[in-house]
Amino acid sequence: MIHPRMATMLAFILTDANVHPHLMERLLRDAVRDSFNAISVDGDCSTNDTVLLMASGAAGRHALLQAGRRERPFIRALRAVCRALALDIVTDGEGARRVMEVEVSGAVSEAAADRVARSIANSPLVKTALAGGDPNWGRILSAAGAAGVPFAPGRVTLSIGDVPVVRRGQGVQNGHDLRSLFTTPRVSIRLDLASGPGRAVLWTCDLTRRYIEINAHYTT
Amino acid sequence: MIHPRMATMLAFILTDANVHPHLMERLLRDAVRDSFNAISVDGDCSTNDTVLLMASGAAGRHALLQAGRRERPFIRALRAVCRALALDIVTDGEGARRVMEVEVSGAVSEAAADRVARSIANSPLVKTALAGGDPNWGRILSAAGAAGVPFAPGRVTLSIGDVPVVRRGQGVQNGHDLRSLFTTPRVSIRLDLASGPGRAVLWTCDLTRRYIEINAHYTT
Repeated sequence: MIHPRMATMLAFILTDANVHPHLMERLLRDAVRDSFNAISVDGDCSTNDTVLLMASGAAGRHALLQAGRRERPFIRALRAVCRALALDIVTDGEGARRVMEVEVSGAVSEAAADRVARSIANSPLVKTALAGGDPNWGRILSAAGAAGVPFAPGRVTLSIGDVPVVRRGQGVQNGHDLRSLFTTPRVSIRLDLASGPGRAVLWTCDLTRRYIEINAHYTT
Repeated sequence: MIHPRMATMLAFILTDANVHPHLMERLLRDAVRDSFNAISVDGDCSTNDTVLLMASGAAGRHALLQAGRRERPFIRALRAVCRALALDIVTDGEGARRVMEVEVSGAVSEAAADRVARSIANSPLVKTALAGGDPNWGRILSAAGAAGVPFAPGRVTLSIGDVPVVRRGQGVQNGHDLRSLFTTPRVSIRLDLASGPGRAVLWTCDLTRRYIEINAHYTT
């Protein structure tokens, strides 16, 4: 589930590391989960996205076999490459002018955190607020509450950038110019549900007039 | 789950029929499922939508107690009122110029049909194609295939209006001007998955520049 409209996304990652295929598949799955599968431009899944990782083995005599200490630099590099490519896709989303990082923590499980993050990241109302540069946290909480997982409004804390805007369900009067945090090319929000250990991070972009022009008026 | 943006939708339906409260609740639930809960403007759930049905009992000495033959005119009237009000909401969707009826049949279950219909009705790519008046059936099938329920592309039949455009997974050369079927104020599509008895009908609207203007630039 990659979401870069109907175009086919093909990612090829090459390395000269000597890695056992079994280990390589597991590491790639992990890296893809937190990068390519953690972005959304418009929530529409492409039908044939592909990420291929190929290792020549030219770099070393001893193959990397398991995710131990020796393998750490390779794992870090693989994750960094996947994340950079995935973020490029969101940044280059149709009509996108702004990327938003959505971090959800404190959910009852990782799956619940993912559902809440996706509900926020795919909400047209959140994405249009982002386009307008309006830090409309009511829309963010509303999308979170509609995700279909346990949600206790009175425990929720929301920050935009590093500025808390909701603390235990109450709006915070903080004197900050929140608009200035919502009009940068890169925006981040953090939502803590205070109900468990589940955490997820997703990246999305704003929904602009240009998205409509590209996708509605391409034949005229 | 009603979806008319964040505004509260309040529907009050009054009748002078004499109906037992238990029966009335059941009939209203059924009618709402196929009307208010079968529409989507943008997929964002409102937090406090309400449909109230109140009966004075002034019309009859004998209360309607069960959904039998005698109750049929009341049931029909209730469903017609709910459907008309629900369709008014979609027609009046933010920036909407076109309403699309999405009928999915042949799914493995009613729940599966509903998921496929919602996936189509909430797809930004389908809704922008509708805005542009382009009968882009690739987007419709792609949204259906991404719904997360069993989907056999080779068995699928899709019609726009009454014109088949895909039959058992193959595009149909039918000589029709499909654009003329996709530029009317009311568009209907029917998707038959040929895999079971499940059926669902949903109504959605197009996603236009005006939607973005209303929801992104309301503060400027």
